[in-house]
Amino acid sequence: MSYNADGGPSMTRELERHVRLLHKFVGNANVEGKFMVFGAGSTQLLNAALHALAPDISSSPATVVASVPYYPAYKTQTAYWNDFEWKGATSDLLNSTRSSRETVIEFVTSPNNPDGRWQLAVVYSAATTYDRAYYWPHFSAIKTPADDDLSLFTLSKISGHAGSRFGWALIKNKTIYERIVMYMDEDTMGVSRDTQLRALKIIKEMIMQIKKKGDIFRFGYALTRDRWAKLNAVVASSDRFSLQKLSPEYCNYFRITRDPSPAAAYAWLKCERETDMDCATVMRTGGIIPREGILYGASSQHVRLSLIKSHDDFDQLLTKMKSLASH
Amino acid sequence: MSYNADGGPSMTRELERHVRLLHKFVGNANVEGKFMVFGAGSTQLLNAALHALAPDISSSPATVVASVPYYPAYKTQTAYWNDFEWKGATSDLLNSTRSSRETVIEFVTSPNNPDGRWQLAVVYSAATTYDRAYYWPHFSAIKTPADDDLSLFTLSKISGHAGSRFGWALIKNKTIYERIVMYMDEDTMGVSRDTQLRALKIIKEMIMQIKKKGDIFRFGYALTRDRWAKLNAVVASSDRFSLQKLSPEYCNYFRITRDPSPAAAYAWLKCERETDMDCATVMRTGGIIPREGILYGASSQHVRLSLIKSHDDFDQLLTKMKSLASH
Repeated sequence: MSYNADGGPSMTRELERHVRLLHKFVGNANVEGKFMVFGAGSTQLLNAALHALAPDISSSPATVVASVPYYPAYKTQTAYWNDFEWKGATSDLLNSTRSSRETVIEFVTSPNNPDGRWQLAVVYSAATTYDRAYYWPHFSAIKTPADDDLSLFTLSKISGHAGSRFGWALIKNKTIYERIVMYMDEDTMGVSRDTQLRALKIIKEMIMQIKKKGDIFRFGYALTRDRWAKLNAVVASSDRFSLQKLSPEYCNYFRITRDPSPAAAYAWLKCERETDMDCATVMRTGGIIPREGILYGASSQHVRLSLIKSHDDFDQLLTKMKSLASH
Repeated sequence: MSYNADGGPSMTRELERHVRLLHKFVGNANVEGKFMVFGAGSTQLLNAALHALAPDISSSPATVVASVPYYPAYKTQTAYWNDFEWKGATSDLLNSTRSSRETVIEFVTSPNNPDGRWQLAVVYSAATTYDRAYYWPHFSAIKTPADDDLSLFTLSKISGHAGSRFGWALIKNKTIYERIVMYMDEDTMGVSRDTQLRALKIIKEMIMQIKKKGDIFRFGYALTRDRWAKLNAVVASSDRFSLQKLSPEYCNYFRITRDPSPAAAYAWLKCERETDMDCATVMRTGGIIPREGILYGASSQHVRLSLIKSHDDFDQLLTKMKSLASH
């Protein structure tokens, strides 16, 4: 297998065509007039976005922010590069005095990881990257198609193929597109063609099954809604914990007003008792391995629990949460 | 497929074991006591090496050099990052005055791309990365096993699976190893597990066939030796061109003194006439698409021709070279 696929040095045209079709059928992104670049998951595309949005840092590094609670990799990936400085919460940045010459990049995950909120960019004049990993019908009502300057998507949250390392960016501006392509070329010479072939097979199957018996979105939504309802029932049985509030919303994909499911696939749990300020320790004592709220820029009263693990894992989580809630 | 393979967050232990076995059977690298990291081809590992060898650049960028003629990606990849400065030829650096505080990274390809020379690092106190892409029996006599501080290997030059984007680093020092792992984690969360599975299948088959009928090294050597002899005959038929000189050498893999094959898979062709100073134009006029010598830091009298294209491509190259040599 050569460096070149049918779409040129790093892109398989047939895969690009099917990704565009998938967006059209699902209605979650406007692909018209957008450029597309593949990446090794949204991870690599986040790095490409950083380098594309602030390419000419001479003396001072570019500032990167996100609203709390945020996906922890924004912080760790930004901090890895000398050219970028992680400045934490957008709210802190807005309250500070800043130079008009400061380059600011804002990461916006919408629906948000970990709490499922709909989010918009809040920093005026910032270059914005929208992470749309969870804007799929399993997790979220599909409202208007996303039409961002720069959106990132990943296969890992659609079909679970996280290890395949496959994602894509939709980009309005040609210069930004070319810079993202340059990052991909210089960093890895594009995405593995084996991975692209696998992604093509998976996405073709998704498209074939849309609104049919094997619809992965219908399957995924039924599962996450069921898990969300079960976890809510346990949490509501005592006053020890609370969860983020989610409301029914009209979904253009299912053409119904849907019951809530954990938008963004996670429960953003709060320990409500004053004696439980370190919520992660409470969880661990109960045999649950959480992600600590402080990783997300939030307080230690919060933890993130994943609702997209295996059936066994979820059943164990529920049993252990029942036990914790009854104490 | 989850983020985790059997070897942890990004490495498939079974693949690592087979890569080590392959080196042992071929005798081209000492793997004892070495750490291994997978990358998306040696391309990503070159970037990881840069960031690992000069991680704490505060004010001035680290200097990167290689000996002429050098693989052009060393220049383009280095130039991409603000933290590193490409300073070109090692000979220029050695002739200049430099600060004792300057961090220098030297890339050494051995056998060299494009001319097949055996090379050693020449810059005292530089951090050295050995690119061993061509140290396989198709291209080169296998002498002592490479035992570098940091060596890079890639599947693309062994089996031709360039599009799979798979390579690996062998590393002596634990700190450097951990920094390279960090680059892989922050940049892409490791290498696609689909790609790792494909690489495992390919490498298992290579090992099974070693010294048997399907030995890829025997096949590759027979092919490149034959092509090298044919091209040499054409070049020797006139005084218009010359090729790098290659001598027979004893090879521990085949246990014979081998005829020359184009170590590093390429012909490093020189146009000898004064009217042919722009050798690339001479080639293009003859219907051949060369890589220009200046890309390799050499003069425009040189071009690189690939001898590892398809049979058809090689036959056409030979026909066109015959025509050029007769004029």
